[in-house]
Amino acid sequence: MLSTRAQWAAGQPIGELMAQALQYPELVSLAAGFVDNATLPCAEVVACFEQLSADASRLRASLQYDTTAGSRSFREVLAQWAYHPWPQARPAVEQLIATAGSNQLLHLITEALIDPGDIVVAAAPTYFVFMGTLKGAGARVFGVSSDEDGMQIEALKETLEQLDGQGLAKRVKAIYLVPDYDNPAGSTLSMQRRQELLELVERWNREKGALVVLWDNAYQLLRYDGEELPPLSAIEPSCRRFVVELGTFSKSFAPGIRVGWGVVPSWLLAPVLEIKANIDFGSAHFNQVLMEIALRDGLVDAHLPAIVATYRSKRDTMLTALEESMGDLPGVQWRHPRGGLYVWLTLPNAVDAAESGLLWRIATKLGVLYVPGVYCFPTEGYPPQRNSIRLSFGVQSHEGIRRGVQMLSQAIRQTLTATV
Amino acid sequence: MLSTRAQWAAGQPIGELMAQALQYPELVSLAAGFVDNATLPCAEVVACFEQLSADASRLRASLQYDTTAGSRSFREVLAQWAYHPWPQARPAVEQLIATAGSNQLLHLITEALIDPGDIVVAAAPTYFVFMGTLKGAGARVFGVSSDEDGMQIEALKETLEQLDGQGLAKRVKAIYLVPDYDNPAGSTLSMQRRQELLELVERWNREKGALVVLWDNAYQLLRYDGEELPPLSAIEPSCRRFVVELGTFSKSFAPGIRVGWGVVPSWLLAPVLEIKANIDFGSAHFNQVLMEIALRDGLVDAHLPAIVATYRSKRDTMLTALEESMGDLPGVQWRHPRGGLYVWLTLPNAVDAAESGLLWRIATKLGVLYVPGVYCFPTEGYPPQRNSIRLSFGVQSHEGIRRGVQMLSQAIRQTLTATV
Repeated sequence: MLSTRAQWAAGQPIGELMAQALQYPELVSLAAGFVDNATLPCAEVVACFEQLSADASRLRASLQYDTTAGSRSFREVLAQWAYHPWPQARPAVEQLIATAGSNQLLHLITEALIDPGDIVVAAAPTYFVFMGTLKGAGARVFGVSSDEDGMQIEALKETLEQLDGQGLAKRVKAIYLVPDYDNPAGSTLSMQRRQELLELVERWNREKGALVVLWDNAYQLLRYDGEELPPLSAIEPSCRRFVVELGTFSKSFAPGIRVGWGVVPSWLLAPVLEIKANIDFGSAHFNQVLMEIALRDGLVDAHLPAIVATYRSKRDTMLTALEESMGDLPGVQWRHPRGGLYVWLTLPNAVDAAESGLLWRIATKLGVLYVPGVYCFPTEGYPPQRNSIRLSFGVQSHEGIRRGVQMLSQAIRQTLTATV
Repeated sequence: MLSTRAQWAAGQPIGELMAQALQYPELVSLAAGFVDNATLPCAEVVACFEQLSADASRLRASLQYDTTAGSRSFREVLAQWAYHPWPQARPAVEQLIATAGSNQLLHLITEALIDPGDIVVAAAPTYFVFMGTLKGAGARVFGVSSDEDGMQIEALKETLEQLDGQGLAKRVKAIYLVPDYDNPAGSTLSMQRRQELLELVERWNREKGALVVLWDNAYQLLRYDGEELPPLSAIEPSCRRFVVELGTFSKSFAPGIRVGWGVVPSWLLAPVLEIKANIDFGSAHFNQVLMEIALRDGLVDAHLPAIVATYRSKRDTMLTALEESMGDLPGVQWRHPRGGLYVWLTLPNAVDAAESGLLWRIATKLGVLYVPGVYCFPTEGYPPQRNSIRLSFGVQSHEGIRRGVQMLSQAIRQTLTATV
């Protein structure tokens, strides 16, 4: 009775993780990807609404439908704001689409590009919710090895060459990256790799056919140290013909308002908008108007330092707690993210951190939840690492982070003892 | 490069209609399905937000993510409110899903049920945007003849029997209806037909296999005369196992806030939520909280009479204008809707009202836009009627309606003269 797609979409980690959270509400969760309630911009939203309600005709207009691509005046302000550091990369407003979070745009692009059996190449590990979308469309996802500097472009090149050698060049539709402070690994694609990526994809598009780069910048503004690295369009504006750049206010402002966006290559614009027109003929206009006011009045920019300071100090708390409680454990390593919400932990090879493994049983018994890293690996290409864990420092208090890491340390020690 | 689905989704009427609106901005549009700006609930939204902003912790919570199905407290209030006239039909809150307009739920259900080649049966004419979604998923849509009392259940029965005779019973996944004051035909499914439909689908589910009824109640509350007819679940609560009932605040409150909902059979719930989790992990929480306040405080109910009065009088203006300007034209007929936003007009057989026809050229030259009825017919089953037109009285002023109908009458007369 159900569609093939429903069967493909079944049993995604996001569903299992939510079920866990419900099953173990009393545990310290280092799993949830929610943002910190304390960072939510209450005063800013009140100020936006007050300004809106003072302008009767604008308020009225905000309650009406707008176009499928979104409010033009919002997108004009957004184009200015999002590319303020890189004016050479500022997109034409026609190429900018407002969506229900950047996640909806990932879905629309998938619909527009992917036939069953088509291939997307992603970092291993990568953002697991998007893998669910890809799986639901019948895509094959190939993982490419990555490190603290993000996807290894040499390995990407080898993967593409192998696929080409198997006669699959035309089936490779997209490369997916979270370039800054990624989910789940907290890594950032280095400047050198950005340039190498551009060259590689440029050449592929010239020689082999259309290959899109999905540049998912969800965490771009959550930067705690290090310099701000440019998006691909700021390095080479002409890459707009094969790059989709995605952004969202869900991390940098408020997920409850759920406004995201993307810059879409001209040739992909009509298909994406046609699909969106069938689904919702445009995301909530009211929310776009609120975000337009927030941008115009500098409320997003003014609020951001508080968000960054909160998460920076939570990240430091987590890194310190890891050092103190696991620094002595051989084979236990973690990355030091320069932004974002996640720390990626690797355990000795013998430890299976998946839900079926011993560590999970002990950890949940002791009182801590984490995301098994194995969820974040594509099913083909670079092999899934069952000894990995994604930790989030977004939601927990400092005390919760310390207690959670402490319990996890105990669980790892008990698992290692039982495993040896 | 594009997916098969993108090619299936291409060239939908909704896109062409928007292009027309942009192409002819100075024309009197009797085409647009927007709601009247004057009916938008500005004061009500201000009151909702004031109440929200007075409760700091609630405001904060509204800016955070909620679950994929939507805010539980919103859905509890919604279940009470939406089924207030029919307490026997009140759904379990678990079966109620909040979505970005009811249109998004139509999309999710399509994803969960339809494989390419699967069949949906709909009234002829029917809501063309949903046909776009179905076409994008590769569905075949069969039209069933309908009249002022909605889909003819005898004809539906014949269609189903024919499909069964062709060995296609298992491919028939859903029957789609807009039961009250439908888009585009303004018809309302009679009480007798509701009962016949229930019996027919009950029997089919028992004998042939799962067949879902998509009961799209978008216009339910826009009732101008006649009694309120019950949804299927109020007639027979056990039908919840095969009926999806959909509702929206886009017509009865504000499309810019874009909150819809649906009651989904238990067995279909997990697939729909898994697909929604991949797309957006839940629609904007903030908007659901605003609507919860609007419902709790009776603001939707208090505002509705003003909306109904506005549209009732516009409907009357359109019907009077039609009578005055076309009452003498043989072969020109229109339905008298008891609610909704649309009047369905049928012209003599010789008149082709499609965009490629003479009437369209003359009408746009004279200064009036309409929706060619042919867009609203499924591609199989009951044949498309090229001599039909959808008129909307939602957006235009009374004067605009009168002028538009007057120009359309002139255009029809000129076309008839040229055709004879």
